Amino acid sequence: MDLGDVKGFLIDLDGVLYTGDTAIPGAREALSFLAEEGYLFRCVSNSTRKCRATIAARLEQLGFDIPEHAVFTPPLAAVRFMKETGKHRAYLLTTGDVNRDFEGACSEDGSTAVDYVIVGDAGDKVTYPSMNHAFRYLMEGADLIALEKDRYWMAPDGLSLSAGPFVTALESATGKVATVVGKPSKAFFDLALLDMGLSAENVVMIGDDIVTDIGGAQAAGMRGILVRTSKFRSDTLETAQVRPAAVINSVGDIRTIL
Amino acid sequence: MDLGDVKGFLIDLDGVLYTGDTAIPGAREALSFLAEEGYLFRCVSNSTRKCRATIAARLEQLGFDIPEHAVFTPPLAAVRFMKETGKHRAYLLTTGDVNRDFEGACSEDGSTAVDYVIVGDAGDKVTYPSMNHAFRYLMEGADLIALEKDRYWMAPDGLSLSAGPFVTALESATGKVATVVGKPSKAFFDLALLDMGLSAENVVMIGDDIVTDIGGAQAAGMRGILVRTSKFRSDTLETAQVRPAAVINSVGDIRTIL
Repeated sequence: MDLGDVKGFLIDLDGVLYTGDTAIPGAREALSFLAEEGYLFRCVSNSTRKCRATIAARLEQLGFDIPEHAVFTPPLAAVRFMKETGKHRAYLLTTGDVNRDFEGACSEDGSTAVDYVIVGDAGDKVTYPSMNHAFRYLMEGADLIALEKDRYWMAPDGLSLSAGPFVTALESATGKVATVVGKPSKAFFDLALLDMGLSAENVVMIGDDIVTDIGGAQAAGMRGILVRTSKFRSDTLETAQVRPAAVINSVGDIRTIL
Repeated sequence: MDLGDVKGFLIDLDGVLYTGDTAIPGAREALSFLAEEGYLFRCVSNSTRKCRATIAARLEQLGFDIPEHAVFTPPLAAVRFMKETGKHRAYLLTTGDVNRDFEGACSEDGSTAVDYVIVGDAGDKVTYPSMNHAFRYLMEGADLIALEKDRYWMAPDGLSLSAGPFVTALESATGKVATVVGKPSKAFFDLALLDMGLSAENVVMIGDDIVTDIGGAQAAGMRGILVRTSKFRSDTLETAQVRPAAVINSVGDIRTIL
């Protein structure tokens, strides 16, 4: 595998840089190496409940030295998307502190029309009034942006609805189709490239999910390197339709193939 | 039109027996005539926010003498459906007093599995926890019943989401397909026939909506008579694919064609 033309990396967070509360051995050094060698990178995550600053703070707790601007999540992808379209009035249906990522990027004004209804995994912020507000904005001309479209996730107290079903509800109510700006949509990878100012052929995605990370990146024209940490299962790799450009034991080994 | 074999009627409420707070002239007498002549009938409505007793009380206020058992709505259709299947544990996602229609017909038990998740136009009862409860019951094996699947309705303060989008959300989250027991589903008309103990060929539907009332009834094997009150528009009739068996000025004229 010739990586001579590589100028940047997209690096998955959970499962590649850390699992649970523990950094993957060698991950910190790998990131330092990439920075020293002049590679650009974005640490990507599909989180739609935490803002960039909160994620960067958590990475710092884990011992990483990653600048805030190198964290790229669906809310940041949405902000980048809005910047591209030149429209900036948005109604947010999100929870946690993710609204902080939109500060300065969009204006919210309950009394007038908005350009975008932006839906993330909103948890308890999903109410009949909030869904109805979103619905009315869409019927008045706003477009729908989905930060992700997962069906559900395993919360501590059991399976819990993610953003997907509520996005589908708004789609079916209005006849509009959401632009999904989370992994594995092509829009997410395209917007991450735009954020780095690099072309797909010069960027490699490093992830532990062969479908979401590697398949998604390849569909956007990038190469993908699979790591054998966290989610990795050899039988999944053997039976997968997607073929990664390389498979390495962990992100710590990235130096060995550059 | 030969109505010699007719033994019963399904009669739409809003637009056929009354509009707003006013009874259609001749409607009371028409119902009295049908009762005297020994015809069975059910007054049908797609309301999923009011129980049978509340609807009957409102009809009484308007001067009608209609027994409670002759009111048939999607909640009653659901109760009839549950009786047919012999399963009676249900989780209700409804609002208003519609839960009263389920008293005695189903048992609710938050701690164990249920047979059915039943979703109506639930208004403010739609919350993240209520949607999540419904979702978890479905993932644990319950089936989904939709009292209706309308997308939205015109509330006093503007367009508002109806049951449909939330049913679609639960369908997309679980991969299950809801049984719709409201008009214009065939199930609704079949269950109304079952409730009267009559066959489709002996029953006539009287309604003001050529698609929902007449088309729905015909699809269930009944004949349909369109009334020229309320929603009726001659151009809609002319361009419709559905051909009613007869068109009369109002339900008050039913005597003239029997």
